[in-house]
Amino acid sequence: MLTVNQRSYRAPKQPTVVVCVDGCEPDYLAQAVATGHMPWLKRTLAEGTGIVADCVVPTFTNPNNLSIVTGAPPSVHGICGNYLYDTASGTEVMMNDPKWLRAPSLLAALADGGHQVAVVTAKDKLRRLLGHGMQGTCFSSEKADQATQQEHGITGVPELVGMPVPDVYSAALSEFVFAAGVQLMKKHRPDVMYLSTTDYVQHKHAPGTEGANAFYAMMDRYLGQLDALGCVIAVTADHGMNAKVGMDGQPDVIYLQDWFDRAIGPGKARVILPITDPYVVHHGALGSYATVYLPAGTPTAQFVSQLQHLRGMEVVLDREAAARRFELPPDRIGDLVCVSERFTVIGTSRERHDLSGLDAPLRSHGGISEQKVPLIVNRRIPGLDPQRRWRNFDAFDLALNHAQ
Amino acid sequence: MLTVNQRSYRAPKQPTVVVCVDGCEPDYLAQAVATGHMPWLKRTLAEGTGIVADCVVPTFTNPNNLSIVTGAPPSVHGICGNYLYDTASGTEVMMNDPKWLRAPSLLAALADGGHQVAVVTAKDKLRRLLGHGMQGTCFSSEKADQATQQEHGITGVPELVGMPVPDVYSAALSEFVFAAGVQLMKKHRPDVMYLSTTDYVQHKHAPGTEGANAFYAMMDRYLGQLDALGCVIAVTADHGMNAKVGMDGQPDVIYLQDWFDRAIGPGKARVILPITDPYVVHHGALGSYATVYLPAGTPTAQFVSQLQHLRGMEVVLDREAAARRFELPPDRIGDLVCVSERFTVIGTSRERHDLSGLDAPLRSHGGISEQKVPLIVNRRIPGLDPQRRWRNFDAFDLALNHAQ
Repeated sequence: MLTVNQRSYRAPKQPTVVVCVDGCEPDYLAQAVATGHMPWLKRTLAEGTGIVADCVVPTFTNPNNLSIVTGAPPSVHGICGNYLYDTASGTEVMMNDPKWLRAPSLLAALADGGHQVAVVTAKDKLRRLLGHGMQGTCFSSEKADQATQQEHGITGVPELVGMPVPDVYSAALSEFVFAAGVQLMKKHRPDVMYLSTTDYVQHKHAPGTEGANAFYAMMDRYLGQLDALGCVIAVTADHGMNAKVGMDGQPDVIYLQDWFDRAIGPGKARVILPITDPYVVHHGALGSYATVYLPAGTPTAQFVSQLQHLRGMEVVLDREAAARRFELPPDRIGDLVCVSERFTVIGTSRERHDLSGLDAPLRSHGGISEQKVPLIVNRRIPGLDPQRRWRNFDAFDLALNHAQ
Repeated sequence: MLTVNQRSYRAPKQPTVVVCVDGCEPDYLAQAVATGHMPWLKRTLAEGTGIVADCVVPTFTNPNNLSIVTGAPPSVHGICGNYLYDTASGTEVMMNDPKWLRAPSLLAALADGGHQVAVVTAKDKLRRLLGHGMQGTCFSSEKADQATQQEHGITGVPELVGMPVPDVYSAALSEFVFAAGVQLMKKHRPDVMYLSTTDYVQHKHAPGTEGANAFYAMMDRYLGQLDALGCVIAVTADHGMNAKVGMDGQPDVIYLQDWFDRAIGPGKARVILPITDPYVVHHGALGSYATVYLPAGTPTAQFVSQLQHLRGMEVVLDREAAARRFELPPDRIGDLVCVSERFTVIGTSRERHDLSGLDAPLRSHGGISEQKVPLIVNRRIPGLDPQRRWRNFDAFDLALNHAQ
């Protein structure tokens, strides 16, 4: 038995694969299964275990991937966005650096316990966080050809996978993750593998559409291969995905920095969009979650009440209430947390968002409306309580403690 | 000035058309506009007025159509479903009969005021309610060939429209409504016209799909023709529409009669699904709203609390709380009102739902998740407060009092 972040895990008896499908709103699976695109998943849901679980708010990639591999919410692991206002330095910084991590991962603990561990991510931004402190194989599709034995525990990845390194904006970037997973399992048979894709397809294609169904059919084939190799497989997601447009087809945006600039003067408040990262072409840095830093000593109650009534706003909480409700580290979320509704996103200032890269109606995430995610295991688990609140970060618990 | 149900309306100066697009989730328009299928609407949203409004819960056809034509919620007009448990007779009955109406319609008042009024509905079930007490033209696509001067104020409808009477389960049933509207406007030029379609297409096709875009492109062409005829046009909807399936693609159903049968004994409680009507093939009588009649004297608090925690349930209210929150007639909603979440529907007993007619993954409505609807006027209306809560039953107010 291993104990990590106050949760205990059994050692794997069979090769165990946890898959985080980026942006996998459960309806993607529903529509693909209903129309015959996912025969493996259809059988797995009938014979195994399928739960709709809650992910972590903010419903972004990094906080949720870290929750899955630590088995804990951001209040424990510290990663509450891709992007942070560092009050110590007074600058806005990426949270890619492992220095922001406050908890060890189960992956590192398993490797320390003598288990062979492999991690494949689509984008390189996640790799360093996921692989922090871990002995084993850890590389990204994005930089698969740059993997070295010393840093990534592997070389010659494109040759192993039999695919060229895909473009960072492509469905193939995720396919490479699955293909690599299957080849690693065939040739190295790791004890534990974590695969994490990118939501390029989900940002462009709605559930049930041709583009989405093709992606999920591809995923189904690879998962079927892993299953045939005898793996215990748990599939979950970092967050869902929704259309974020008004009736005119344009992004429906609350420009929150503009709102504060009008309310208390230009630049007095600082609105942070933790969805921001170097890859914003497909969503223009627009998501349904923002944090706000107010001038020191500003009372928050009045803003909470005013913002709460803005059209398209779902909930506005002060630091303490947000930290409690969403299990976030209070020192990293500013004075206010704002969450917009299903069809609405939050921006900073109108002129700071470049939407010229959007070649399809905006789809994005970040809010409570993207909190439902799949939690699927290819084993029947008797006695699961369907009424309790399951989380995506229960995936390793189900896979290691209940499925084998 | 006319006053109906305590709201005042100006007489129309230009021909005025209010359109209720059945099941028109705003995202249908967003995706169709974004992909070039609705050029008239794109221009209208840029040059006129576009609001996302709230319809009435239960988000069903009859309550909302009656709200639109009375300018009032169901607490005033009395129609709170398609289907009702008549406690007086101890039987379950359709609410199609005008005897259930508790308020006059604006349509009848306009006709009484000397204005020429025309009403076209897709299905005949709505016609009698909408035309109650009204002098003028009032017919359905479904029975267009049976219209008589005496009862419907018109004959020879298929000849006027130039289309055969469509099948009741078809997109053409709604197209016939628009085509009839255009021909009526060309040949009879009524002062006020109310057009109400059916959601056959929306029950089958998600926003942005080919089937949906084709429907909205068709609608856009007819609305453009009405606009070219000089009409003031207000477009709204009775309710939205969402996928209602689990990850296995099958309807995600809370069988509420079964739940009560287990909890307090078979048949003790009576679960009513007010979505029920004679046309249930496309949704199997499954929607996100149910009412429950309990044995006399049963305390409700315990059930409210238990049901509220069921997976997929959004809110459970006792009679008083439901009547207050949703503006419903308390004597017609039973002891409990249950509303399920976006992807979940409520059924009675498992064996009483025939889902064999479902030839596509279930899409349905009834809940709070289907409350957002378009409210669009082809005139710019200066000074509208975008922060107030607009309702679909403000459509005639906007069209008559603000748009001309």
